[in-house]
Amino acid sequence: MKNESYLMGLIERIHPLNREQIEAAQLHLNNLTKPPGSLGKLEEIAKQIAGVTGEISADLSKRAVIVMAGDHGVCEEGISAFPAEVTPQMVLNFLSGGACVNVLARGAGADVYCVDMGVNADMVHPSLITCKTRKGTANMTKEQAMTRDEALAAIIDGFHLTEKLAADGYRMFATGEMGIGNTTASAALCAVLGNMSADEAVGLGTGINEERRMHKVDVVNRAIACNTPSVTDPIGALAKVGGLEIAGLVGVILGAAANRCPVIIDGFISSAAALVAASIAPQSAAYMIGSHLSQEQGHRKLLEQIGLSPMIHLDMRLGEGTGAVLCFHLVDAALRVMREMATFESAGVSRE
Amino acid sequence: MKNESYLMGLIERIHPLNREQIEAAQLHLNNLTKPPGSLGKLEEIAKQIAGVTGEISADLSKRAVIVMAGDHGVCEEGISAFPAEVTPQMVLNFLSGGACVNVLARGAGADVYCVDMGVNADMVHPSLITCKTRKGTANMTKEQAMTRDEALAAIIDGFHLTEKLAADGYRMFATGEMGIGNTTASAALCAVLGNMSADEAVGLGTGINEERRMHKVDVVNRAIACNTPSVTDPIGALAKVGGLEIAGLVGVILGAAANRCPVIIDGFISSAAALVAASIAPQSAAYMIGSHLSQEQGHRKLLEQIGLSPMIHLDMRLGEGTGAVLCFHLVDAALRVMREMATFESAGVSRE
Repeated sequence: MKNESYLMGLIERIHPLNREQIEAAQLHLNNLTKPPGSLGKLEEIAKQIAGVTGEISADLSKRAVIVMAGDHGVCEEGISAFPAEVTPQMVLNFLSGGACVNVLARGAGADVYCVDMGVNADMVHPSLITCKTRKGTANMTKEQAMTRDEALAAIIDGFHLTEKLAADGYRMFATGEMGIGNTTASAALCAVLGNMSADEAVGLGTGINEERRMHKVDVVNRAIACNTPSVTDPIGALAKVGGLEIAGLVGVILGAAANRCPVIIDGFISSAAALVAASIAPQSAAYMIGSHLSQEQGHRKLLEQIGLSPMIHLDMRLGEGTGAVLCFHLVDAALRVMREMATFESAGVSRE
Repeated sequence: MKNESYLMGLIERIHPLNREQIEAAQLHLNNLTKPPGSLGKLEEIAKQIAGVTGEISADLSKRAVIVMAGDHGVCEEGISAFPAEVTPQMVLNFLSGGACVNVLARGAGADVYCVDMGVNADMVHPSLITCKTRKGTANMTKEQAMTRDEALAAIIDGFHLTEKLAADGYRMFATGEMGIGNTTASAALCAVLGNMSADEAVGLGTGINEERRMHKVDVVNRAIACNTPSVTDPIGALAKVGGLEIAGLVGVILGAAANRCPVIIDGFISSAAALVAASIAPQSAAYMIGSHLSQEQGHRKLLEQIGLSPMIHLDMRLGEGTGAVLCFHLVDAALRVMREMATFESAGVSRE
């Protein structure tokens, strides 16, 4: 099994953004026929992409959403509106193209890759990618969700998968996930690594009521009391109160950054993975793009902790990568502005 | 010249949304493989489109952004960062396809129609639509911006243009505008019709500083003192302190509604037109879709007054229809969900 120093070697490959290309992008933006800065965050994205890719208007048309699935032993505590059997059922839905993320990915010209990171069922399908470290996590209120070696293995699997896709020509990624119970694990990670109380971090998930939310807060607090995760050890926190699909997404984010690809972070669970990634490798945050503001109550503060700004406010709370995939359109818009807009000189328009 | 009762006849053709189709859309959404309501505003849009068009997943692929241009006599007061000559220059930029709205419209599969509603220059171009009631408005700090008959003519022109495009097969519209000085006129309309003070309504436009903003507040207050527009007479307010392109957009919005087409409202100026349209014909508001939250400071309150909720938060402040055009992608996403997502039954997924 690959060890912690192997992962540190991978992380060392994540470099700062290309400052020269960011400045070149800014100069180009200043010449376009619009008041300076008037495209707001679209201009920030254009500059970020230049810094990430090293190209002033990169072709990011080959893109993928990586949907990682895993089960959660903490479901025994009754924290979700849906039964755990929905995880493998939804994996099959992803594989047959009927889930929301498939529908929105088709609209955005993105391919969907579905990965079994630890579903608690025997899954066989020609399109399923299998990186199954174990069949679901343990109940984190009673023991660690997984061992440290298992967490490392899941991160490294996510990294290598993303690296392989980058080698196949993918230039931009979105994160997605499926795992009944994973808002509970994500809330626990926020409470350990994100400077939030369990009560701030725990929301209504896929649709529980306030009474069950209070129970979920208690479950998170018990999981933390049982495992004593520490803010200074993000890999340990991920192993103790995280999830296999969350660990896989940490690897996706780090792998995208190491391969100079932007990675769009979906909602609450994906953002929890982004928080872990930024805690392990702070330089990876520059490669992340915030997507939407979820209805999950802890999401706003979680994004602030990472330094991400959500572009889309649709009160979505579905996960799967659905919010991130919608933002492919906005990244496309930013790149199209860089490629196609007239300059003051070419259009004969007066400056202020 | 067509008169006020003619316009009232057009407005009578705007009917309430189709309740049966909204309910049918809700039933369909409830069966899709996702927690109920978890797509947030995308579900609201899907239902609204069903109510607007009378079809559960209408084909809105033929869409247009209508960019209306006009000049403003109030520019004499020095309220803009850009000289008035930029209005005709930018019209030519729209016609040659180099402006931001052209670039983003290409990305969203939308056609751009540029209309001279009252540019203060002789404009000739084979693609330019001319509905020129007069060459720019008068300086509203000294007299009415235009006569009541001129305002009516501009509204009716906008209505008929949109009706013609609907007859040509366009099913969805976005509003856009160009007119140096038009944030000042829009702020004045907000102050008269939108329950806002001039200080709340006036922002930094295309990029003035706080000192000039205070001057702009004074200009708006003087225009209102000079013309005494009334909240009970929105057409009169439009004539007294509005603009020709704003009047044209009022007509576009009313024309879209009368032809059962959704109309996406762009930023501050377009929203001021939407406020006038909703004041004249309250039933037209049901046909409007909010798009983005502009950086212009009065925009949030203006949208609340109309009852619109912005989906995209990009700190844009360009106008032209750029924010509205980006939202075509989100409407497409909502419609694709209606058409393509699997149901719990078809996918074999358990309900909560």
